Amino acid sequence: MSVETTVTEYLRAWNVTDPAERAALLAKVAADDVRYVDPLADVTGREALSAVIGQVQAQFPGVPLTLHSGPDAHHDVVRFSWAMGPEGAEPVVIGTDSVLLAADGRFALVTGYLDRVPG
Amino acid sequence: MSVETTVTEYLRAWNVTDPAERAALLAKVAADDVRYVDPLADVTGREALSAVIGQVQAQFPGVPLTLHSGPDAHHDVVRFSWAMGPEGAEPVVIGTDSVLLAADGRFALVTGYLDRVPG
Repeated sequence: MSVETTVTEYLRAWNVTDPAERAALLAKVAADDVRYVDPLADVTGREALSAVIGQVQAQFPGVPLTLHSGPDAHHDVVRFSWAMGPEGAEPVVIGTDSVLLAADGRFALVTGYLDRVPG
Repeated sequence: MSVETTVTEYLRAWNVTDPAERAALLAKVAADDVRYVDPLADVTGREALSAVIGQVQAQFPGVPLTLHSGPDAHHDVVRFSWAMGPEGAEPVVIGTDSVLLAADGRFALVTGYLDRVPG
Protein backbone atom coordinates (compact mmCIF):
# COMPACT_ATOMS: atom_id res chain seq x y z
CA MET A 1 0.00 0.00 0.00
CA SER A 2 1.44 3.41 -0.91
CA VAL A 3 1.83 5.97 1.82
CA GLU A 4 -0.82 8.10 0.08
CA THR A 5 -3.29 5.21 0.25
CA THR A 6 -2.39 4.51 3.86
CA VAL A 7 -3.14 8.13 4.74
CA THR A 8 -6.42 8.03 2.80
CA GLU A 9 -7.51 4.83 4.51
CA TYR A 10 -6.46 6.15 7.92
CA LEU A 11 -8.57 9.27 7.45
CA ARG A 12 -11.44 7.13 6.20
CA ALA A 13 -11.27 5.19 9.47
CA TRP A 14 -12.01 8.42 11.33
CA ASN A 15 -15.36 8.55 9.50
CA VAL A 16 -16.37 4.93 10.08
CA THR A 17 -18.77 4.71 13.01
CA ASP A 18 -19.18 0.93 13.05
CA PRO A 19 -16.57 -0.33 15.55
CA ALA A 20 -15.91 -3.63 13.78
CA GLU A 21 -15.56 -1.99 10.39
CA ARG A 22 -13.30 0.68 11.88
CA ALA A 23 -11.14 -1.95 13.59
CA ALA A 24 -10.71 -3.83 10.31
CA LEU A 25 -9.74 -0.66 8.48
CA LEU A 26 -7.32 0.46 11.19
CA ALA A 27 -5.67 -2.98 11.13
CA LYS A 28 -4.63 -2.25 7.55
CA VAL A 29 -3.04 1.11 8.28
CA ALA A 30 -1.84 1.12 11.91
CA ALA A 31 0.54 -1.18 13.77
CA ASP A 32 -0.84 -3.22 16.68
CA ASP A 33 1.13 -1.10 19.14
CA VAL A 34 0.60 2.23 17.38
CA ARG A 35 0.97 5.23 19.66
CA TYR A 36 -1.42 8.11 19.02
CA VAL A 37 -0.77 11.40 20.80
CA ASP A 38 -2.53 14.72 20.27
CA PRO A 39 -3.22 17.60 22.68
CA LEU A 40 -6.26 15.76 24.11
CA ALA A 41 -5.22 12.10 23.97
CA ASP A 42 -2.21 9.85 24.43
CA VAL A 43 -2.95 6.19 23.79
CA THR A 44 -1.08 3.10 22.74
CA GLY A 45 -2.56 0.23 20.79
CA ARG A 46 -4.97 0.08 17.89
CA GLU A 47 -7.99 -0.62 20.08
CA ALA A 48 -7.29 2.45 22.17
CA LEU A 49 -6.89 4.53 19.02
CA SER A 50 -10.23 3.23 17.75
CA ALA A 51 -11.81 4.22 21.07
CA VAL A 52 -10.40 7.76 20.74
CA ILE A 53 -11.92 8.01 17.27
CA GLY A 54 -15.27 6.84 18.66
CA GLN A 55 -15.12 9.54 21.33
CA VAL A 56 -14.42 12.27 18.77
CA GLN A 57 -17.29 11.00 16.60
CA ALA A 58 -19.57 11.16 19.63
CA GLN A 59 -18.48 14.74 20.26
CA PHE A 60 -18.97 15.81 16.62
CA PRO A 61 -21.67 13.43 15.32
CA GLY A 62 -21.87 13.18 11.55
CA VAL A 63 -19.11 15.72 10.98
CA PRO A 64 -16.66 14.30 8.44
CA LEU A 65 -12.89 14.45 8.74
CA THR A 66 -11.11 14.95 5.43
CA LEU A 67 -7.63 15.51 4.07
CA HIS A 68 -6.79 19.23 4.14
CA SER A 69 -3.23 19.25 2.77
CA GLY A 70 -0.53 16.77 1.94
CA PRO A 71 0.44 14.04 2.39
CA ASP A 72 4.07 15.16 2.47
CA ALA A 73 6.22 12.05 2.83
CA HIS A 74 9.96 11.33 2.96
CA HIS A 75 12.01 8.47 4.38
CA ASP A 76 9.75 6.66 6.88
CA VAL A 77 7.69 9.69 7.87
CA VAL A 78 4.67 11.51 6.53
CA ARG A 79 2.85 14.68 7.41
CA PHE A 80 -0.67 15.68 6.46
CA SER A 81 -3.31 18.13 7.60
CA TRP A 82 -6.93 17.22 8.10
CA ALA A 83 -10.07 19.26 8.50
CA MET A 84 -13.22 18.47 10.40
CA GLY A 85 -16.40 20.31 9.63
CA PRO A 86 -19.79 20.06 7.93
CA GLU A 87 -19.53 19.34 4.21
CA GLY A 88 -19.31 22.50 2.12
CA ALA A 89 -18.72 24.69 5.17
CA GLU A 90 -15.65 26.22 6.75
CA PRO A 91 -13.81 23.57 8.84
CA VAL A 92 -14.42 23.72 12.60
CA VAL A 93 -11.12 22.06 13.46
CA ILE A 94 -7.94 21.76 11.42
CA GLY A 95 -5.00 19.69 12.58
CA THR A 96 -1.70 18.37 11.35
CA ASP A 97 -0.35 14.90 12.02
CA SER A 98 3.29 13.84 11.77
CA VAL A 99 3.56 10.07 11.45
CA LEU A 100 6.43 7.64 11.86
CA LEU A 101 5.88 4.54 9.75
CA ALA A 102 6.65 0.99 10.84
CA ALA A 103 8.81 -1.21 8.59
CA ASP A 104 5.64 -2.56 6.94
CA GLY A 105 4.41 0.95 6.13
CA ARG A 106 1.69 1.06 8.75
CA PHE A 107 1.49 3.96 11.21
CA ALA A 108 3.68 3.40 14.28
CA LEU A 109 3.54 6.84 15.90
CA VAL A 110 0.96 9.50 15.12
CA THR A 111 1.75 12.91 16.59
CA GLY A 112 -1.11 15.34 16.19
CA TYR A 113 -1.18 19.11 16.57
CA LEU A 114 -4.14 21.47 16.31
CA ASP A 115 -3.93 24.32 13.80
CA ARG A 116 -7.44 25.69 14.28
CA VAL A 117 -9.91 25.08 17.09
CA PRO A 118 -13.36 26.57 17.75
CA GLY A 119 -12.82 30.11 19.08
CA MET B 1 15.07 23.33 31.04
CA SER B 2 11.61 24.21 29.70
CA VAL B 3 10.62 22.94 26.29
CA GLU B 4 10.58 26.54 25.04
CA THR B 5 14.20 26.99 26.14
CA THR B 6 15.19 23.63 24.66
CA VAL B 7 13.74 24.71 21.30
CA THR B 8 15.48 28.10 21.52
CA GLU B 9 18.82 26.52 22.32
CA TYR B 10 18.39 23.89 19.60
CA LEU B 11 17.74 26.59 17.00
CA ARG B 12 20.70 28.55 18.34
CA ALA B 13 22.89 25.51 17.70
CA TRP B 14 22.00 25.77 14.01
CA ASN B 15 23.67 29.18 13.98
CA VAL B 16 26.85 28.19 15.82
CA THR B 17 29.63 27.55 13.35
CA ASP B 18 32.33 26.52 15.83
CA PRO B 19 32.07 22.70 15.99
CA ALA B 20 33.11 22.42 19.65
CA GLU B 21 30.71 25.12 20.75
CA ARG B 22 27.93 23.57 18.69
CA ALA B 23 28.60 20.14 20.16
CA ALA B 24 28.41 21.52 23.69
CA LEU B 25 25.14 23.27 22.93
CA LEU B 26 23.61 20.22 21.23
CA ALA B 27 24.59 18.07 24.22
CA LYS B 28 22.22 20.18 26.33
CA VAL B 29 19.23 19.80 24.02
CA ALA B 30 19.58 16.50 22.12
CA ALA B 31 19.95 12.92 23.34
CA ASP B 32 23.16 11.07 22.47
CA ASP B 33 21.26 8.81 20.07
CA VAL B 34 18.96 11.51 18.68
CA ARG B 35 17.56 10.71 15.25
CA TYR B 36 17.23 13.62 12.85
CA VAL B 37 15.30 13.08 9.64
CA ASP B 38 14.27 15.68 7.06
CA PRO B 39 13.75 15.38 3.28
CA LEU B 40 17.53 15.67 2.68
CA ALA B 41 19.04 13.88 5.67
CA ASP B 42 18.48 10.91 7.95
CA VAL B 43 21.09 10.58 10.67
CA THR B 44 21.35 9.10 14.13
CA GLY B 45 23.57 10.42 16.88
CA ARG B 46 24.40 13.92 18.02
CA GLU B 47 27.70 14.04 16.15
CA ALA B 48 25.97 13.17 12.90
CA LEU B 49 23.35 15.85 13.56
CA SER B 50 26.08 18.39 14.18
CA ALA B 51 27.67 17.39 10.86
CA VAL B 52 24.35 17.94 9.05
CA ILE B 53 24.13 21.39 10.58
CA GLY B 54 27.67 22.13 9.42
CA GLN B 55 26.77 21.07 5.88
CA VAL B 56 23.72 23.36 5.82
CA GLN B 57 25.82 26.24 7.14
CA ALA B 58 28.36 25.60 4.36
CA GLN B 59 25.54 25.69 1.80
CA PHE B 60 24.01 28.92 3.18
CA PRO B 61 26.96 30.72 4.80
CA GLY B 62 26.03 33.40 7.29
CA VAL B 63 22.31 32.92 6.77
CA PRO B 64 20.64 32.68 10.18
CA LEU B 65 17.98 30.18 11.12
CA THR B 66 15.32 31.55 13.47
CA LEU B 67 12.06 30.51 15.07
CA HIS B 68 9.16 31.19 12.69
CA SER B 69 6.18 29.91 14.71
CA GLY B 70 5.55 27.95 17.89
CA PRO B 71 6.72 26.13 19.82
CA ASP B 72 3.50 24.17 20.17
CA ALA B 73 4.05 21.52 22.85
CA HIS B 74 1.91 18.85 24.49
CA HIS B 75 2.71 15.59 26.29
CA ASP B 76 6.27 14.64 25.21
CA VAL B 77 6.14 16.26 21.79
CA VAL B 78 6.70 19.72 20.38
CA ARG B 79 6.27 21.32 16.98
CA PHE B 80 7.81 24.52 15.74
CA SER B 81 8.53 26.21 12.43
CA TRP B 82 11.82 27.82 11.56
CA ALA B 83 12.90 30.19 8.84
CA MET B 84 16.24 30.57 7.16
CA GLY B 85 17.07 33.74 5.31
CA PRO B 86 19.06 36.96 5.44
CA GLU B 87 18.12 39.17 8.39
CA GLY B 88 15.29 41.56 7.57
CA ALA B 89 14.51 39.80 4.30
CA GLU B 90 11.90 37.28 3.23
CA PRO B 91 12.94 33.76 4.36
CA VAL B 92 14.52 31.54 1.70
CA VAL B 93 13.51 28.32 3.39
CA ILE B 94 10.78 27.65 5.94
CA GLY B 95 10.39 24.31 7.62
CA THR B 96 8.47 22.64 10.41
CA ASP B 97 9.92 20.16 12.86
CA SER B 98 7.93 17.69 14.96
CA VAL B 99 10.00 16.48 17.89
CA LEU B 100 9.63 13.57 20.29
CA LEU B 101 11.27 14.34 23.62
CA ALA B 102 13.31 11.89 25.68
CA ALA B 103 12.42 11.37 29.36
CA ASP B 104 14.97 14.04 30.29
CA GLY B 105 13.37 16.57 27.94
CA ARG B 106 16.09 16.49 25.31
CA PHE B 107 15.20 15.87 21.67
CA ALA B 108 15.02 12.14 20.84
CA LEU B 109 13.50 12.27 17.36
CA VAL B 110 13.41 15.33 15.13
CA THR B 111 11.18 14.97 12.06
CA GLY B 112 11.55 17.85 9.66
CA TYR B 113 9.36 18.91 6.77
CA LEU B 114 9.87 21.74 4.31
CA ASP B 115 7.11 24.34 3.95
CA ARG B 116 8.89 26.67 1.54
CA VAL B 117 11.95 26.05 -0.63
CA PRO B 118 13.66 28.25 -3.23
CA GLY B 119 11.52 28.16 -6.38
